[in-house]
Amino acid sequence: MKKLINNPEDFVRESLEGMAAAHADLIKINFEPTYLCRVDAPRQGKVAIISGGGSGHEPMHAGFVGMGMLDAACPGEVFTSPTPDQMLAAAKAVDGGAGILYIVKNYSGDVMNFEMATELAYAEGIRVLNILIDDDVAVKDSLYTQGRRGVGTTILAEKICGAAAERGYDLQRVADLCRKVNLNGRSMGIALSSCTVPMRMLPTFELGANEMEVGIGIHGEPGRKRMDLKPANEIASMLALSILEDGVYKRTVREWDADKGKWFDLELVNQSLKKGDRILAFVNGMGGTPISELYIIYRKLADICANRGIQIVRNLIGSYITSLEMQGCSITLLKLDDEMIELWDAPVKTPSWCWGA
Amino acid sequence: MKKLINNPEDFVRESLEGMAAAHADLIKINFEPTYLCRVDAPRQGKVAIISGGGSGHEPMHAGFVGMGMLDAACPGEVFTSPTPDQMLAAAKAVDGGAGILYIVKNYSGDVMNFEMATELAYAEGIRVLNILIDDDVAVKDSLYTQGRRGVGTTILAEKICGAAAERGYDLQRVADLCRKVNLNGRSMGIALSSCTVPMRMLPTFELGANEMEVGIGIHGEPGRKRMDLKPANEIASMLALSILEDGVYKRTVREWDADKGKWFDLELVNQSLKKGDRILAFVNGMGGTPISELYIIYRKLADICANRGIQIVRNLIGSYITSLEMQGCSITLLKLDDEMIELWDAPVKTPSWCWGA
Repeated sequence: MKKLINNPEDFVRESLEGMAAAHADLIKINFEPTYLCRVDAPRQGKVAIISGGGSGHEPMHAGFVGMGMLDAACPGEVFTSPTPDQMLAAAKAVDGGAGILYIVKNYSGDVMNFEMATELAYAEGIRVLNILIDDDVAVKDSLYTQGRRGVGTTILAEKICGAAAERGYDLQRVADLCRKVNLNGRSMGIALSSCTVPMRMLPTFELGANEMEVGIGIHGEPGRKRMDLKPANEIASMLALSILEDGVYKRTVREWDADKGKWFDLELVNQSLKKGDRILAFVNGMGGTPISELYIIYRKLADICANRGIQIVRNLIGSYITSLEMQGCSITLLKLDDEMIELWDAPVKTPSWCWGA
Repeated sequence: MKKLINNPEDFVRESLEGMAAAHADLIKINFEPTYLCRVDAPRQGKVAIISGGGSGHEPMHAGFVGMGMLDAACPGEVFTSPTPDQMLAAAKAVDGGAGILYIVKNYSGDVMNFEMATELAYAEGIRVLNILIDDDVAVKDSLYTQGRRGVGTTILAEKICGAAAERGYDLQRVADLCRKVNLNGRSMGIALSSCTVPMRMLPTFELGANEMEVGIGIHGEPGRKRMDLKPANEIASMLALSILEDGVYKRTVREWDADKGKWFDLELVNQSLKKGDRILAFVNGMGGTPISELYIIYRKLADICANRGIQIVRNLIGSYITSLEMQGCSITLLKLDDEMIELWDAPVKTPSWCWGA
């Protein structure tokens, strides 16, 4: 695997420095500890939204820092959780007095470190809420996860909650909205090739010349099964049907009580998609797949939804949550309501996502 | 090479159908002959801009049809020029009475077919001008080219001229502006891997496990030389210096006299970039390269320009003009003036490029 890099150990830092140099009008960067935040942070009286996770999924999350989306992002090393001190420093940098929402993808390291950061922020008098994204229907538990992994719905939540915070929603309302987005989003992906972590320079897994991995995670974690490569229409069907036929899904998550300063358990239940539902259809590239192929997947996905009486009222097609240069795609279907649609359409201006502004 | 496709012969059509399904608010599509145009075309009294070329370079051109950029795009089969009947049909569909600008990348097939379409349109009373983009400094002639190839500057010209047409520039003024953009833009690219045309399913060329091709064309045409893979900083330097040290470049092109209905020769001269110049720096991915790596290239490019006293006042980083799933990147440097900066910043709303609207 060839890459446009210098020393592998400098990959994350140099990439972030390039971003900061390119987008100084939108973001500023801090090292030791590492975070990026809006150039105009903190915004007084506005809820601040922070996300983060391992690097290697670009443009998520650093590319989504800016007006109408994230206030800060905490990038870890490649496929490695950021540390609580990064998350705490980011919270301090962007706290405008209205509190902080941490949007956390369900991976054990991320969950643990964001929980620790939540407690540290509490100790310093910063009000934080903490919402988990666990939308990947492929597998119940995984290599780095208890419960479902957090994937494509993450960035839809970042967009929608970012718009809500921009409009002046208070912290509890932004957190409730984020939980609602997660409860209405489902994803699944496939890989046609592995990715290669710069520090290892060996493929994360091996796939035969005619094989694909179905239900892949965004770190190359194994999925549901390995099978012979299928035509795009069959791949789109397999992913779409896995999502559309995913039944009621119950699990218990931990959330933070910012008044009492303690964790509590909350039972969450996803309902199945049904005829008449309005959805956002998101076809995501894994980093090495050209957009022309994503449109072929979308074409079939649109047919499938139409045949089931499910209305695609918004869509997003491109490489937004990736696994380095992995070839493949994922589909995320998010059930929308009027509130989510209005917030989806709201202006956003970040390095990798811009409209209406 | 694995791809998300069905039958290779359906690749272009299905991808375009997916685009049309996803972006029905922005574009409409026609088959037999194939073109995409703005959903609100024709716009009375507005100069219409049309580009086109072989498919496989997505999002260029189809992804750039919409407000503030192209009025229509004519996609050929993969790496194959569209035909004059496509270009003529597109011209008829978007002609709002103020004339048509064809933006033509310098490849023999594209040049010949756009020239034929220009003559056909003239015969039908449609006023067309025809501007060539030939910005690739890598080689003088190439597999499919007499003179320099047309690459990254193409989409910068589409953005800037699209904004000008939106503002009411007349046809001659839009064409003059397009020629000015071309005369101020220079590009060069490298490939870390080949691409694979769907109908062949074999790599267009072979590269060793530790090799790169320097000065590559966007169809996998050979470049200046093949060499061992270098660190990103050396690659960025090699590309940047090839552009920065490219001297005065003279050539004769053919343009169309829309009054007299005949071609005339025009001598064009590019001047070198020099200290104090304000530029747009465009780091482009070839389709299979993650954006994180493009930022590492940008980081070094920004350093090089700063050291030479050349001011990057605008930038663009992402995969805009690609070669299917090829890994690699290109750099385009465009010398700007106040007019170009203002038009660059103007609103645009297309499937793959959106800001300010």
